[in-house]
Amino acid sequence: MYLYSNIIGSFVFNQNFKIREKSLFPDSKAKEVFMALQKNEILEPEKRILKKFKNIKNLRAEADEKALSKIFIELESYKEEFYKKNLLLTKIQVREAFTEDLMIIQVSSLITELNKSINLLSRRLREIFGYILPELEKKISSHEKFAELIVNKGISELKKEFKIKDSMAPEISKETMGSAKSLAKTILGLLKEKKRKEQELERLMKKNCPNLKDVAGSLTGAKLIAIAGSLKNMVLMPASTIQLLGAEKALFRHMVKGSKSPKYGIIFEHPIIQKAKKKDRGKAARALADKILLAAKVDYFKGRYIADKLNKELKERFKEN
Amino acid sequence: MYLYSNIIGSFVFNQNFKIREKSLFPDSKAKEVFMALQKNEILEPEKRILKKFKNIKNLRAEADEKALSKIFIELESYKEEFYKKNLLLTKIQVREAFTEDLMIIQVSSLITELNKSINLLSRRLREIFGYILPELEKKISSHEKFAELIVNKGISELKKEFKIKDSMAPEISKETMGSAKSLAKTILGLLKEKKRKEQELERLMKKNCPNLKDVAGSLTGAKLIAIAGSLKNMVLMPASTIQLLGAEKALFRHMVKGSKSPKYGIIFEHPIIQKAKKKDRGKAARALADKILLAAKVDYFKGRYIADKLNKELKERFKEN
Repeated sequence: MYLYSNIIGSFVFNQNFKIREKSLFPDSKAKEVFMALQKNEILEPEKRILKKFKNIKNLRAEADEKALSKIFIELESYKEEFYKKNLLLTKIQVREAFTEDLMIIQVSSLITELNKSINLLSRRLREIFGYILPELEKKISSHEKFAELIVNKGISELKKEFKIKDSMAPEISKETMGSAKSLAKTILGLLKEKKRKEQELERLMKKNCPNLKDVAGSLTGAKLIAIAGSLKNMVLMPASTIQLLGAEKALFRHMVKGSKSPKYGIIFEHPIIQKAKKKDRGKAARALADKILLAAKVDYFKGRYIADKLNKELKERFKEN
Repeated sequence: MYLYSNIIGSFVFNQNFKIREKSLFPDSKAKEVFMALQKNEILEPEKRILKKFKNIKNLRAEADEKALSKIFIELESYKEEFYKKNLLLTKIQVREAFTEDLMIIQVSSLITELNKSINLLSRRLREIFGYILPELEKKISSHEKFAELIVNKGISELKKEFKIKDSMAPEISKETMGSAKSLAKTILGLLKEKKRKEQELERLMKKNCPNLKDVAGSLTGAKLIAIAGSLKNMVLMPASTIQLLGAEKALFRHMVKGSKSPKYGIIFEHPIIQKAKKKDRGKAARALADKILLAAKVDYFKGRYIADKLNKELKERFKEN
């Protein structure tokens, strides 16, 4: 008599390797069973069977190859069942591979793409409005303000407000003005969506990487995770790599053509580096990358909040220099 | 006694070249005066002055250089006035340089940019929704349908409608679903704006280039105008250039590296070429470019509607072959 279990169920075989008894696992227990098999634990139905049959050989523990191969032939009829169960397990694993840092990567890439679209369409709006009231364009540098003015005000209001006399504007049709207003509204819609996504990123970073968020900043922190591929990948990197994330092209040029080695990647956007004197920037980037890595590690291992301490150290050090 | 007029006004000078009398033109007449001066017509105030003063010499007609140079010295005090009037004239000219084919170019470029943004954001929506219900993505290829489903339906409705069981989807938060819905709504907003702009282009093309529109199609026709720079530039081109507009890179490769010469540029999108057999495509492109150029010329010179005739000829010719 043999006992053999796999993810489908526990089976009792007689001397001729025919199934005498079986106990199939329900789908809902698939993951539990899989984990138990991995750890070589005795499963519930196995315990019951071992009690019921004397002189039974548990083939999971003792590798009797001859017996096993015969049992596998008998189990052929369960092939489809086996395939289904494996698929189910894979789906469970895919599902569990989702961590919120994946969403952080998505949202930060989305913010970049929204920005691209906003800039593309705003430049077009400025060109089109150049045929309506060309003098306005240079007076307003913010894309958002520009779109808001076009949505909310008429031509004569705009002329009055910005003291535009003898405009070069051609006679335009009502349709052209309506078209510019509708494009401006679309741009404002994209700007609102961008703000919502920035808030979402803040929330995700605060929940998952509070230390990284407060040392690197939400967007810079998220971009670092995105370039690294995941928070896990990021904490496995040396600080010198983090210092250069986002400067891959310059680094490549340095290695291939011997041009100057880059001092920083996207951490360049950080106020500590922005405020540092040019000669101190390399040093500041090194120190910042150290603290960012430390912050990310603490976040990855779900540690305490230490960002305030790290920021204080950074600030004090760069006061000294 | 001398009479001299320029865009500022008509001036009467005495023997010592001092201004004795003057009649300044109002700003509202600037363009009229400019045109009359160009054509060497006698202006109204000049007629009056010529009647009033006997023995007066009109220096606009008779080029007495010595007298003119002295008069210009006297007019120095009108320098600022002269500058202002010229600026005003320039503004008027800029205003009148606006033709609706400029708006056709803007709107067709805008449609291309809206398309770019829609594709960029739709691909991101698909990635994000891959963490919510990964099985849906492959079932819906249209970006619009995909965004509509996400806006209008809940997860359980979607699972039922598309018969998705045992989804690989991780447990996602309400916020993540809300975020995907809001991105989908933003994409639908862009799609609506694109449709509005397509309608606007139809209207502009119908009004300004009805023949080009109906031979080449609204968007292809507009793109040809855009690449040429204006309808005027386009009608000055030979048909062989129009045939290749949009294939500049391939043509350059052909000329520099001797690779195969391109047979068509953006007119490739036209059904006549799409439906032609591969070996006839060059011939079809040549014939189509001829008809497109003819249509554009008739439109530029505000001729009759002949597009139906041109299209019939094209169709018949490519039935014969």
